Amino acid sequence: MKTKGQLIIVSAPAGTGKTTLVHRLKKEFSDQVIQSISCTTRAPRPGEVDGKDYVFLTEEAFNERVKRGEFLEHATVFGHQYGTLKELIESQRSSGRDVILVIDTQGAMELKKKVKALYIFVAPPSLEVLEERLRNRKTESSETIKKRLKWAQHEIDQAKHYDYVVVNDNLETAYEALKSIIIAKKYEGGNHGTR
Amino acid sequence: MKTKGQLIIVSAPAGTGKTTLVHRLKKEFSDQVIQSISCTTRAPRPGEVDGKDYVFLTEEAFNERVKRGEFLEHATVFGHQYGTLKELIESQRSSGRDVILVIDTQGAMELKKKVKALYIFVAPPSLEVLEERLRNRKTESSETIKKRLKWAQHEIDQAKHYDYVVVNDNLETAYEALKSIIIAKKYEGGNHGTR
Repeated sequence: MKTKGQLIIVSAPAGTGKTTLVHRLKKEFSDQVIQSISCTTRAPRPGEVDGKDYVFLTEEAFNERVKRGEFLEHATVFGHQYGTLKELIESQRSSGRDVILVIDTQGAMELKKKVKALYIFVAPPSLEVLEERLRNRKTESSETIKKRLKWAQHEIDQAKHYDYVVVNDNLETAYEALKSIIIAKKYEGGNHGTR
Repeated sequence: MKTKGQLIIVSAPAGTGKTTLVHRLKKEFSDQVIQSISCTTRAPRPGEVDGKDYVFLTEEAFNERVKRGEFLEHATVFGHQYGTLKELIESQRSSGRDVILVIDTQGAMELKKKVKALYIFVAPPSLEVLEERLRNRKTESSETIKKRLKWAQHEIDQAKHYDYVVVNDNLETAYEALKSIIIAKKYEGGNHGTR
């Protein structure tokens, strides 16, 4: 039997560059790192693919899974539900690869109460920079951006509960940090000899 | 005032490749990482430079410094004394750079009781491989190698007390690990924002 891969939780406010960072990680370590997929009841954004970016579920289907206890964690953000399927994570980890799960702070904090994992928070250099990045994406209304910034401030306040905090003010440095954190974890006192 | 650099303790049995690893680290991060120098009463080996590899002291001078409380830690290994000067470490760290201190497990364990630092143990893949490496160095007698191997076994037993353990069975992988551990440390929960 293979050694179980580690579970890596990444949280970051929208516009912090987490998608780019995680994408690079998966590309460089394609045989060692996979990303897990969350379920959501929100509508797909342009370009998002069902079963790849998210598993898109109706409210009804989502609630059914909640009832059956299939979620490791689930949370409601901006009126939409998000959740992580236990079974999916377990089967991915049992392949021996590390599983990255990108979830918001609410889900992460719920997870932290029950699951041993590596918790990483990616922070924007400042709210001003974040606002600029969100405006440049041109995918959201001014109203939505305001809501996102308020939520971002709340998320940043949660950073202190994470094992590691990476401020993404330079993509190369932030990527190097993220990569190092994941590699280093394998050599922590209790972990050696397990790979 | 600059942020104080972190103190990095590296222990490894002789022949584990620690010198090569630390040398590469200093070379790649020459502006961020410096190595601290230990004092010793043992005679210099061929090629070793006083004030660079070690500060070579007479028994008398060493004991004088012990009496004056100038050592952060000191220990006797194979009848020779080794010690780390408090003042040297402090002045090096206050430059903002990380200070690597290569010391044996005895010294490291003494240090661990009183100093917050990053403790890394570099282990050989096996005692057999270590023996082979020591023989290939051709700098020590068969008798000395035997003593070193016995001491190495004792040191390996201490690995569990270190924050990180890196098995050097492949130099590239071991170097990547060492580097990652040091980078990752800067992003640990309590540390962010301090640099």
